Amino acid sequence: MQIALDAMAGDHGPEELIAGALLAVEETGVNISLVGDEKIIAAHLEKLDPGSKMSSRVSVVHSSQVIEMNEHPVDAIRKKKDSSVMVAFELVRQGQAGAAVSAGNSGATMAAGVRKLGRLKGISRPGIASLFPTLKKPVVLMDIGANVDCRAQHLFQFAVMASAFSGILDNKYPRVGLLTIGEEIGKGNSLIKETYPLLKDSSMNFIGNVEGRDIYQGNVDVIICDGFVGNVCLKVSEGLAEAAMMMLKDEIVKSFMAKIGYLLARQAFKSFKKRVDYAEYGGAPLLGINGTGIICHGKSSSHAIKNAIIEAAKMVKRNLNQNILESLSAEKKVEHMET
Amino acid sequence: MQIALDAMAGDHGPEELIAGALLAVEETGVNISLVGDEKIIAAHLEKLDPGSKMSSRVSVVHSSQVIEMNEHPVDAIRKKKDSSVMVAFELVRQGQAGAAVSAGNSGATMAAGVRKLGRLKGISRPGIASLFPTLKKPVVLMDIGANVDCRAQHLFQFAVMASAFSGILDNKYPRVGLLTIGEEIGKGNSLIKETYPLLKDSSMNFIGNVEGRDIYQGNVDVIICDGFVGNVCLKVSEGLAEAAMMMLKDEIVKSFMAKIGYLLARQAFKSFKKRVDYAEYGGAPLLGINGTGIICHGKSSSHAIKNAIIEAAKMVKRNLNQNILESLSAEKKVEHMET
Repeated sequence: MQIALDAMAGDHGPEELIAGALLAVEETGVNISLVGDEKIIAAHLEKLDPGSKMSSRVSVVHSSQVIEMNEHPVDAIRKKKDSSVMVAFELVRQGQAGAAVSAGNSGATMAAGVRKLGRLKGISRPGIASLFPTLKKPVVLMDIGANVDCRAQHLFQFAVMASAFSGILDNKYPRVGLLTIGEEIGKGNSLIKETYPLLKDSSMNFIGNVEGRDIYQGNVDVIICDGFVGNVCLKVSEGLAEAAMMMLKDEIVKSFMAKIGYLLARQAFKSFKKRVDYAEYGGAPLLGINGTGIICHGKSSSHAIKNAIIEAAKMVKRNLNQNILESLSAEKKVEHMET
Repeated sequence: MQIALDAMAGDHGPEELIAGALLAVEETGVNISLVGDEKIIAAHLEKLDPGSKMSSRVSVVHSSQVIEMNEHPVDAIRKKKDSSVMVAFELVRQGQAGAAVSAGNSGATMAAGVRKLGRLKGISRPGIASLFPTLKKPVVLMDIGANVDCRAQHLFQFAVMASAFSGILDNKYPRVGLLTIGEEIGKGNSLIKETYPLLKDSSMNFIGNVEGRDIYQGNVDVIICDGFVGNVCLKVSEGLAEAAMMMLKDEIVKSFMAKIGYLLARQAFKSFKKRVDYAEYGGAPLLGINGTGIICHGKSSSHAIKNAIIEAAKMVKRNLNQNILESLSAEKKVEHMET
């Protein structure tokens, strides 16, 4: 399995990304195409892989441009046709890679994936799913930002795609919840009210409405919402986690005893931080494109990049897109039978 | 100043609520009307105020019904005309109390407030604001659940009302942000795109778009969103805070050293918990009704109830509704001047 990694875009720069690629090569059977400035990549490879032990499994594909984090996604992919993310998806298009992974501008990665690979047949709106840590297994939330104004049919398709993705993570017949603001049927805005019956009448394992507080409980495998709400959930969670750590630190530094206590419990804090840091969970899969792509958090560590590469390989090996197409067609059959 | 307290509805029952009322009476110049079953209230008062020292400042108003947490708000206030929350707002309507406070069913409290007192002139949709803890001063977020399908004009009015409320909390010329999913102009869904120019052209201190992660930073005084998104923010935050504490506990109990460390730092944890527990911040004001009402969290402690009573008294004393009317009329003048 060949995976194309955008080796240029990410908060920590090429070195961290390339280190992640090498970890994936070392630990799994995956081969990597590093896409970006060949001179920069070569310099890092020399440092990270002295003696070129992994050179047979790591290739370099040159690209002359990089899309920056603050660029407008659609403008950027139009102007920068030779950007690392566009070239990575081009490799997928040509069949030279099974999937593309990027820790760059999320919107541009999404746009590049759709532009190069097109939409999966029958999918109106590809979207981005993300794993959230919970008290039990991580939950898949979709959409987290690609589609801000949605109709019920879009949310329904997110459920089909995210369920299939949850299946890849070994959840059989994943429990699907609709994110709203009250557990009772009929609670929510007009979009939720229209989506509810579609999910209820589907062959998915729809468990009904869930609330924001249910995200972290781990009693549901897939949570569906529009991209505006999903992105707010993600950002609120990130913001609260950061702020809470700072507030706790504020309180701890106030007392000598508390400081000693913190030092003794430091390892527990580290493990906790790792557990809630969703960057550790690999990446956010682009679902609904005719191919495979993963968006990583800009701040991804080499460890997170490795996880994303492994996740991408799993999506390809386990035929995620084929599963989505089959589920979609099964749902359509149900619809036809009923009408 | 007389405040009517719904003494029946709340997760901890009448005793906690009445204890909160007595704290407010003790610490401030406020007098309280306790609304609910007079026998139950009398029994608690006997226990909490032995010798009836506070009897001249605490009166009891009998009501025969209680609205439960799971009842449908509008049905409930229609059926239970003699419920504690309805009678509390009736006291406000009759001028026998300056404000009503309830820790019961939020929707029913909102509905009772609107039913008994009506809307403030010029306000299309009353809503619920809430204080969120931040790294600096608390921020006011509105709406947190009363209005799930909104138009731009509604969000504009939320901004006027929440700014006036922020003024009551001693923020002069409060900074107003519009909650969306990207800081640049034009980022967000269609509602946000329509609301942005209204806020930009207003005389409010509009600082532009803010993201979910900005809620906890404390660099903005007022954040505006529709009630669906606001409620999701609230519930996601509650859920994450709870889950994070449980995950941290999980990690701590794994090691003896960490347990010792936790014991040493326990006071810091307690202070931290208090700081992030928004139940401590008093209550969520009902804004846009022709009178004053506060909704407390069901799990409110006596301390939180006391804070809510003080907050209600402040809203009345500082003429919040008059301020809202004046701001609204100033905005209209600007509109007229421009057209």
